Amino acid sequence: MSAAEFDLIDDFFRPLAVGRPGSLDLTDDAALLPVPPGESLVTCVDTVIDGVHFLAGTPPEDVAAKALRVNLSDIAAMGARPLSYMLALSLPNWAERPWVEAFAAALAAEQELFGIYLLGGDTTATTGPLTLSVTLFGSLPAGQQPLRRAGAKAGDLVFVSGSIGDAGLGLLAAQGALTGLGETAEAVMRQRYDRPQPRLALGQALGREALANAAIDVSDGLVQDLGHIARHSGLGARIRRDDVPLSPAAEAALSHDEALWATILGGGDDYELLFTTPPGKAADVAAAAAELELQVTAIGDMVAGDAVAVLGPDGAPIEMASSGWSHF
Amino acid sequence: MSAAEFDLIDDFFRPLAVGRPGSLDLTDDAALLPVPPGESLVTCVDTVIDGVHFLAGTPPEDVAAKALRVNLSDIAAMGARPLSYMLALSLPNWAERPWVEAFAAALAAEQELFGIYLLGGDTTATTGPLTLSVTLFGSLPAGQQPLRRAGAKAGDLVFVSGSIGDAGLGLLAAQGALTGLGETAEAVMRQRYDRPQPRLALGQALGREALANAAIDVSDGLVQDLGHIARHSGLGARIRRDDVPLSPAAEAALSHDEALWATILGGGDDYELLFTTPPGKAADVAAAAAELELQVTAIGDMVAGDAVAVLGPDGAPIEMASSGWSHF
Repeated sequence: MSAAEFDLIDDFFRPLAVGRPGSLDLTDDAALLPVPPGESLVTCVDTVIDGVHFLAGTPPEDVAAKALRVNLSDIAAMGARPLSYMLALSLPNWAERPWVEAFAAALAAEQELFGIYLLGGDTTATTGPLTLSVTLFGSLPAGQQPLRRAGAKAGDLVFVSGSIGDAGLGLLAAQGALTGLGETAEAVMRQRYDRPQPRLALGQALGREALANAAIDVSDGLVQDLGHIARHSGLGARIRRDDVPLSPAAEAALSHDEALWATILGGGDDYELLFTTPPGKAADVAAAAAELELQVTAIGDMVAGDAVAVLGPDGAPIEMASSGWSHF
Repeated sequence: MSAAEFDLIDDFFRPLAVGRPGSLDLTDDAALLPVPPGESLVTCVDTVIDGVHFLAGTPPEDVAAKALRVNLSDIAAMGARPLSYMLALSLPNWAERPWVEAFAAALAAEQELFGIYLLGGDTTATTGPLTLSVTLFGSLPAGQQPLRRAGAKAGDLVFVSGSIGDAGLGLLAAQGALTGLGETAEAVMRQRYDRPQPRLALGQALGREALANAAIDVSDGLVQDLGHIARHSGLGARIRRDDVPLSPAAEAALSHDEALWATILGGGDDYELLFTTPPGKAADVAAAAAELELQVTAIGDMVAGDAVAVLGPDGAPIEMASSGWSHF
C-alpha cells in the first residue's frame, strides 16, 4: 500500500469507523464482526462500476449513496436491518483527494441516515473505471426467517411498494434517449436512478409480521424480478399492467409515448420491494404500509405455470419487447 | 442481470455454494452468515485487479488462487480460521465462458484445500480490467483475542515465517527486469507471486497459545509491514539484514546483484507472517513452528523509537532505497 493510500484512509475513511464495534479503527488486516445478542446475521455484496451502474460524471455524493443503497435494498428484501459494511474501493487516476473527500463525506451522511458504519475495507488503484464493491451486514431478530424469492403460493397477491419505472425513465432521459419530460420531472427521475430508496422499514415489517411468502427488490426490472420469484417458487405470475403504480412524471411520459411501457416494466434500478402475500393478509399489508406512510399496490397474482404474463386493459396478455435491462 | 450472468452463476458458481450453510444456494439477494457456536467472527476484504495485483495473462487458476489467498493471509494474521467468502467479480468482455469455467474450477480446488465455501456474490460486466473483491469470513475460538498490529513490546523478538523476497523477485523476473535466474528458479519465484501460501496454521497456533504480541502478513514489503507493527505499537524496530531468511534462488540472485536487497526487503506479496514475541516465549514459537514443519526465523527486535532500522553485517544501519512496493 502506498503513502497516498494511507493518507486517504487516515484522512477520510478512518473517521467512518473509529470507535465502532469490531472495526479496530481500520488499523488491522481484518475486522471483528459482532453479532447482536440473539440475532442472526445476513450479508450481501454488490458492485457498482462507473459507466455501467452509474453514469460517467455522477457526483461522488451520488456514487456513495448508490453503492450503499443497492446493498441496503438487498438487506431490505430479506426483512433484515442493516448493521455495517466493508468497502472495496478501486480508484482511477482522475479520482483525486477532493473527489474522495466528497465521497467519504457522503458515506458519513448515509451512515447517519441508515444507522450503519464502516467496518473495514480495501483501497487500491485501478487502470479501469471507478469500481466499488460493498459487502453489507444486517441482522434478523431471533426466530425471524429471512424473506426469500422461493415460497410464493398459487393465489398469493403480488404487491409492489412505491412507484415503478422512474429510474429507468430517468436513465433514458440522462442518456438523451427521452426528451420533453420537463426539467423537474427529469431531475426527479434521475434522482430515483442515482439515489434509490431502500425499503428497509417495509421489509422489516413484512418479515416481523410474516406478511410475505416471497420477496425481492426490483433491480433487474419488474417483470424479470417477478420472474425470479415465480421460478424459485415453481409458479407463474400475472400482473395487470394498468395497476402498476406510476409517478405523475411517468404517467405524463407514457401519455406521449406508449412504447415507454417496455422501460417501465423492464427497466431496472427502482429498488422497490416486490412481494407476494396470501389474500387473507392483504389488509395487514395495507395497515403496515399505512403506518410507514408508504404506498403498496396489488398488481397481480401468483398462478400455476412457469411464466410472467402482463395483462393489458382488456385482460389479455401483452407481448413484452424485453424482459429486463441487462448489465451484460 | 442478464441471461449470460444467470448462466455463469447457474453453471459455474452455484455448485460452489449448493448445500453450504447460509448460502441459500445463491438463489437470493443476500445470504445468511452462520456463526460457529461459541466463536466470534472476523472479516476482511481485498481486491485484486488484472495488471495491478497480478500480471496480464495470468491463468484463471492463479487468479482464483491469489484472490482467495491474499484474504486467507489476512485471516491468518489475525489468528483465525477461515469459514466462507463472498465473491464480487467484474468481468471484461474477453473473459468468456471457458475462462470463467477454469476460474470456478480453481475456486473449487481452493475451497477444498482451505476448507471454505462460497457464501454469496455478485457478477457483473466491466469496461475495465478484470477485478475481484473477495470478502472472507473467519472465526476465533471462544476467548481467543485477535492478533493485531498494535501490542508489540520493547524487547520483543521479531520473527518471520518461511522465506522473504521470492515474490518480489519473481515479479521482477516476469516483467523482464531480472534475468539469469534460470528457468526453475524463475518458475518457483513466479509461483510464490501468483499463489502465495497463507500461514493459517501458524497464525492459529500463535493466537491459540498467545505466543505473539503483534502480527501482520507481509504484503506491502517486510520493512513497511514491520513499520505498521512499530507505528501501531508506538515503537521502533531493528532487523538484521543477513538474518532475513532467503530461498536458495534468492541467495543466488543476490550473489550476482546486491542491489536486489531493495526488492527483497521492500517488495511485497510474500504473504509470510511477521510477528513479535517476548524472548521468554521464543522456544514455544520454535516448537509450534517445528510441529507445523514451517521455518520461522528471528530477524530482529522491537525497540524504543519510531522507525525501522535495517542493520548490515557490521551492525550499522543501512539506507533503504525504497520502503516498500507501492500499489499506487
